[in-house]
Amino acid sequence: MLGTDSVPSAKGDIKTLCSPEDRQRIHVGWVAGPSDAREEYDHGGSPPPIDLPDVQLQNHLWETYVNAQISLWIDCDSDDEELAAMSEIELWKELNYIAYMGLRSAVIRLKHADSPRLAQVLNQWLWTKNVNLGLWILIPTRFDDFIRLSSDTRDCWTVWANFRKLCSNFYSQKLIAGLQFTVDIDDEFVDKKLLSRWKAEPLATFCVDVDVFVRCRETDQISLPPAHANLLLDLWMPEKGRIMVRGSSEHDTSPSLQRQCAQALRAIVRDVNDRPSGITFSGFLVDSNISYIDVLQVPLQPLADNLDSCVYNTFEQDPVKYKRYREAIESAVHDFGELSSHPEHLVLWRNRCVIIESDMRNIPVIASGKGYPQPDIVVSELLGSFGDNELSPECLDGITPFLKPSTISIPQTYTSYVAPIMSLHIHQQIKMCGASYWNRGISGHGRNGTTLQADGSYRQCYPQGEYIANMDQIYVAYLRQYCALAEPKPLFTFNHPNFTKESNARSGWVSFEIDRPADLMGFAGYFHMNLYKDIALSIVPSTYSEGMISWFPAVVPLRELYRVQNGDTITLNIERKVDDTGVWYEWFIHHTVILLIIYF
Amino acid sequence: MLGTDSVPSAKGDIKTLCSPEDRQRIHVGWVAGPSDAREEYDHGGSPPPIDLPDVQLQNHLWETYVNAQISLWIDCDSDDEELAAMSEIELWKELNYIAYMGLRSAVIRLKHADSPRLAQVLNQWLWTKNVNLGLWILIPTRFDDFIRLSSDTRDCWTVWANFRKLCSNFYSQKLIAGLQFTVDIDDEFVDKKLLSRWKAEPLATFCVDVDVFVRCRETDQISLPPAHANLLLDLWMPEKGRIMVRGSSEHDTSPSLQRQCAQALRAIVRDVNDRPSGITFSGFLVDSNISYIDVLQVPLQPLADNLDSCVYNTFEQDPVKYKRYREAIESAVHDFGELSSHPEHLVLWRNRCVIIESDMRNIPVIASGKGYPQPDIVVSELLGSFGDNELSPECLDGITPFLKPSTISIPQTYTSYVAPIMSLHIHQQIKMCGASYWNRGISGHGRNGTTLQADGSYRQCYPQGEYIANMDQIYVAYLRQYCALAEPKPLFTFNHPNFTKESNARSGWVSFEIDRPADLMGFAGYFHMNLYKDIALSIVPSTYSEGMISWFPAVVPLRELYRVQNGDTITLNIERKVDDTGVWYEWFIHHTVILLIIYF
Repeated sequence: MLGTDSVPSAKGDIKTLCSPEDRQRIHVGWVAGPSDAREEYDHGGSPPPIDLPDVQLQNHLWETYVNAQISLWIDCDSDDEELAAMSEIELWKELNYIAYMGLRSAVIRLKHADSPRLAQVLNQWLWTKNVNLGLWILIPTRFDDFIRLSSDTRDCWTVWANFRKLCSNFYSQKLIAGLQFTVDIDDEFVDKKLLSRWKAEPLATFCVDVDVFVRCRETDQISLPPAHANLLLDLWMPEKGRIMVRGSSEHDTSPSLQRQCAQALRAIVRDVNDRPSGITFSGFLVDSNISYIDVLQVPLQPLADNLDSCVYNTFEQDPVKYKRYREAIESAVHDFGELSSHPEHLVLWRNRCVIIESDMRNIPVIASGKGYPQPDIVVSELLGSFGDNELSPECLDGITPFLKPSTISIPQTYTSYVAPIMSLHIHQQIKMCGASYWNRGISGHGRNGTTLQADGSYRQCYPQGEYIANMDQIYVAYLRQYCALAEPKPLFTFNHPNFTKESNARSGWVSFEIDRPADLMGFAGYFHMNLYKDIALSIVPSTYSEGMISWFPAVVPLRELYRVQNGDTITLNIERKVDDTGVWYEWFIHHTVILLIIYF
Repeated sequence: MLGTDSVPSAKGDIKTLCSPEDRQRIHVGWVAGPSDAREEYDHGGSPPPIDLPDVQLQNHLWETYVNAQISLWIDCDSDDEELAAMSEIELWKELNYIAYMGLRSAVIRLKHADSPRLAQVLNQWLWTKNVNLGLWILIPTRFDDFIRLSSDTRDCWTVWANFRKLCSNFYSQKLIAGLQFTVDIDDEFVDKKLLSRWKAEPLATFCVDVDVFVRCRETDQISLPPAHANLLLDLWMPEKGRIMVRGSSEHDTSPSLQRQCAQALRAIVRDVNDRPSGITFSGFLVDSNISYIDVLQVPLQPLADNLDSCVYNTFEQDPVKYKRYREAIESAVHDFGELSSHPEHLVLWRNRCVIIESDMRNIPVIASGKGYPQPDIVVSELLGSFGDNELSPECLDGITPFLKPSTISIPQTYTSYVAPIMSLHIHQQIKMCGASYWNRGISGHGRNGTTLQADGSYRQCYPQGEYIANMDQIYVAYLRQYCALAEPKPLFTFNHPNFTKESNARSGWVSFEIDRPADLMGFAGYFHMNLYKDIALSIVPSTYSEGMISWFPAVVPLRELYRVQNGDTITLNIERKVDDTGVWYEWFIHHTVILLIIYF
């Protein structure tokens, strides 16, 4: 029942000995092959007792270095009902015992392509036990390794995704995926498009059978075959990853072989750890020492809330945005004929500057009252990650009565974009984000506002309940644990000045062809904005304004993860609604399935 | 509007300059006296504009070093309705501006003994603004300094307690008390019994007017008068404390005077910081690096849950408990006549040891089945912080059928104790403790248990709602930010063996005379246990088993803070109820007020 990740003073049936190189955050452990009595149980009669010491190691050593492994004979989904029923009971006992010992992780191998009874036990355990124990669910990298119907054409990712769904898509710090590297690996672990789905899963563990390694005849060095090495390279998460090597017989545990395997694996993952992360955060994001990665933020509402000076201060450090604005303004002024000679004329503007402190929608009244001339150029920066979501159209329309036909608006036009995404992590983060007791009155999403309660407290009201309300909201997040399922497509466009008073309500739909089985979590949202002519700012990945840091993508979630298949068409229907009291979005998906009808 | 705690490069109207000695966690700042226009506003006409720079300091300097001070002319509770109404508007504006600048603290002086309109503004601000800003409410140490009716005989603590109640007893990281030291201080700040109430309040700030200091004629050194120094000594919290010195005129800001004041204050609080905290935690609690102080724990339920080996391991490190058990066993064995010669006979027991793995309530059946003899001595350790709350009586009754009349139970008897306590912090902690999304299914208090939901999740049901359910529960906590309002009194006693089968249901009441105005939060719970004859273990403060670490006090909360007055009698009525499915407590208080009727 026990495997280990290196035990300083291991005795008895604990066999493994690779010391972790903590400073590199690479854990390579070694687990014994199936050899003890409990592994070899032949299910005739009562199961062998759990017979392990509980005081051999100090608590913190159990917690840090030892992984439990659920006995291999346990098979809750066996066709043999007696074995299945006994397995359920014994699994619960083993989990209890692991919790009693204070271990932090238990490895469970998925044997069947469908494991509803195992999932039921684990789901109940996860929801009802107050134990700091992560369950590592091992999935082989070959679909044929599952017990399954021969007609079954699903893939290994689907097996895992079905399993975690049966476990309520439980929190990924407790329900964790692992890949069991087989000698032959399926195409879904070679094809980049298919394997990218695992980047949206809580995949933190790799278990490599010693048979998988190959030995070079000339150098006598062992290494992983290229396909396996690439898989590990692609999916390794430096902060969380763990590798276990599993010997299949007694001689596999020779210290020399262990050392060689560990060396071969470390060489691969060390490359990943040293590789730049692809994040091009500028200094201030790194300096601020706040983790933005995969962290949900509620979009700013500058029209409803006053932002503090720190926020503006941060925005103003963007190395790209203001450069582009300057180029756009120069170009517009030039076209206007004002700037024929020298850009230094710009500094003279200071003497002609009037600051009007008010909601910009009141400017037509104020400015006409004071007799100010109509402007030649209007410059604004009011965009959210999803383009119009911070109500730039409403703000700019508010000053339109004060403009003249020749007034230039910078920006001139912007378009929101959406792309379907997978991300268990973001889905779970949204589910979790309940307001604390003292924050219940802080105005959030929803149109019901904050109301004073009889006890003197204030509270937000959510008719659909707080958990669903959390799903019915647009977020902003720097996305990493996710997988884009298609390229972004344009959604809503706004042009300024809006002299024709076109409504800012919108209604649209965008369809995406799905090219792999996947769990749709929602949509990433982006914008592309033309400041003036072709001078643009964009957070759409294909046209991204390199070096710009002011916007992370928006996330438009679905209430539940939605399973899609290769060949399906998914359509996002989304409306931007406007009335006298606010602006909001409503969205849903519809799903077209290609039915293949075969006549015999 | 701005005071400061030392600004590295202060300019303009920011006048103060004592550098904090961070390494000692003592902040002594200096604030300017009322001198700028906004302070001197005479409420004829419109208020002066808020006219402060927002870029003079970097954000992190604003955050760290500068305290805002709400303009002194602001008086929401003025009899002058025009001033009051304008004050409400301007206070909201000043708070907005402070939030905009990114400051972390704002000082507000309470002028009136009753400030309902000020409280209403702050209460709405606290509940609805998502801003990391602490409001420091300054209370003078002389009741006569408040604007009040001359017949008003309340005290300064009551003024503060009423004010925070009007602010919904809001979270003490946002609503913080401060004392404004006056030249003369009232008896409530000298009398230890009265001033101890402030230990139950979020008192983190002291503001000392420069006039309060006295100068020694011989040495020319300045110092605080003894009463003020003692007050500071008694109430200073080393981790959170801050002191501001306020000059009353221009010459008070001379660097030499500032230095002397700071020196005098640091000398006092440095003594507190160096003073042992009174905590006698043994090594393991300190080593574990977990903060237990004022942290709520849900009592263990060893009869319902299996505890993990870490818990037992921790308990077994108690330096006192097992010593006393050994003494009790030796004494009982001695009385039994077995141990006439030598205590080493005890080691022979190993050879006569039988371990029965089962619920102890099944032992009569198992032991009779196997023909084991009836025991001479039964040793158990099943007590919770509140004595019987971990169901020791039920467990021990479960083996009674297997005992003989001469069987000795160790322990022989135990009694729970209760004492009324004040503690805003613990009250707030309980209010806040909502289960996270993924912990909604973990079995807690309440009798409704965990149920499977349609979506596959599990959930606890609380008919009274989660917030009230949190209050209807006994906790365990190492109490520090609290004030005991009376000595503990005994409640329920259990004797073992319980051959007469006396019911374990109990019903009782305990009355306490209240000797000061206070906010009753609930009751601290303790036990005193006689292991054998006079060999005892106790966590009742007056008989505490010194050096014992296994139990922190229990806390029996009330749903709301309850105001009591000097001379009142408070009675706790509490029942221990038992049925086939469980054991639970029900409690309420009643309150007897002495009415003084005076005839003229």
